[in-house]
Amino acid sequence: MPKELKDEGQSLKAFMLLHRTRDLLFRCQDRAVAEFGLTAEQYSVLLAIEYLDDPVRATDIGRWMERKVNSISMIVDRMVKAGLVERIRDLPDRRAVRVVFTSKGKRAFELATPEVWKLIDEMFSPLPHEEKRTLIRLLETLRERALKHLNPGTDVRAIATYGTDDASRLLKRMRRYTPQ
Amino acid sequence: MPKELKDEGQSLKAFMLLHRTRDLLFRCQDRAVAEFGLTAEQYSVLLAIEYLDDPVRATDIGRWMERKVNSISMIVDRMVKAGLVERIRDLPDRRAVRVVFTSKGKRAFELATPEVWKLIDEMFSPLPHEEKRTLIRLLETLRERALKHLNPGTDVRAIATYGTDDASRLLKRMRRYTPQ
Repeated sequence: MPKELKDEGQSLKAFMLLHRTRDLLFRCQDRAVAEFGLTAEQYSVLLAIEYLDDPVRATDIGRWMERKVNSISMIVDRMVKAGLVERIRDLPDRRAVRVVFTSKGKRAFELATPEVWKLIDEMFSPLPHEEKRTLIRLLETLRERALKHLNPGTDVRAIATYGTDDASRLLKRMRRYTPQ
Repeated sequence: MPKELKDEGQSLKAFMLLHRTRDLLFRCQDRAVAEFGLTAEQYSVLLAIEYLDDPVRATDIGRWMERKVNSISMIVDRMVKAGLVERIRDLPDRRAVRVVFTSKGKRAFELATPEVWKLIDEMFSPLPHEEKRTLIRLLETLRERALKHLNPGTDVRAIATYGTDDASRLLKRMRRYTPQ
């Protein structure tokens, strides 16, 4: 039996595992959407466009994904080149640019969604309902702390996206594209 | 009160939260190491070199980080350009290349480690010991499932790195660079 880790060792282990588990899930997701000409990152951007209300700007996608706008803009650039999305400059504020699906992007999203769904289902199947709730609670605690760290002095509950209502709504959106 | 999510909604929410929490922690880590001229990814590679026994090849780093060798090689390329690591071709197998710290890379690693340590400590401080153990157990379950998915038919326990012994060893290595 390995010795029990002290508390600081547990923190380090949990930190490393969080990174690795997410990276591995990301690789699984990359594989699941590759046959539709998408990367996992591109799928996430399409999901954000599907989820958010039009007009969707890169800043909106960034806010929803809790990512920097810069990195979203770079992903969107590549997606424009790949013909998955278009940038349209038709908002009252002429500097604002909205990002929309092309028909190719929409089709890829429709085909990829059931595969992503199947993957999520498979990945979480070993965890009983109660354990999923525990995982969610623990991750929310960590996320809140990270948001506090990145935005000192602000009310992180106001900027945190993806509460339970969002999850219900996202579920409905994804369900449009998955067999019942 | 928001309605309780059904089981599939919980899986989706846990999946999204895992991505976001990790991305946010990564941003915190990027910020913590930026003043030493490093990105969070580069710090992880330096940590792998520190942790693994010489000779350390890109494949060894990839295996330990559970990442594809391709992506590790790309990170190492940029780190060579930044003067943080060197590639040395002096192994009996002339095709094999080992990756070593430069003195600049070593120094950056030494200075960044206490900051990373402080960050991990801060991030996990809201979780009592018992909750950290629960989080580790849940993440290990997910990771095992993801490894199975990526490597069907193989014994994932044999390829999974980072058990408790590894954590103790990593802790010791990091502790060399942090004030006691």
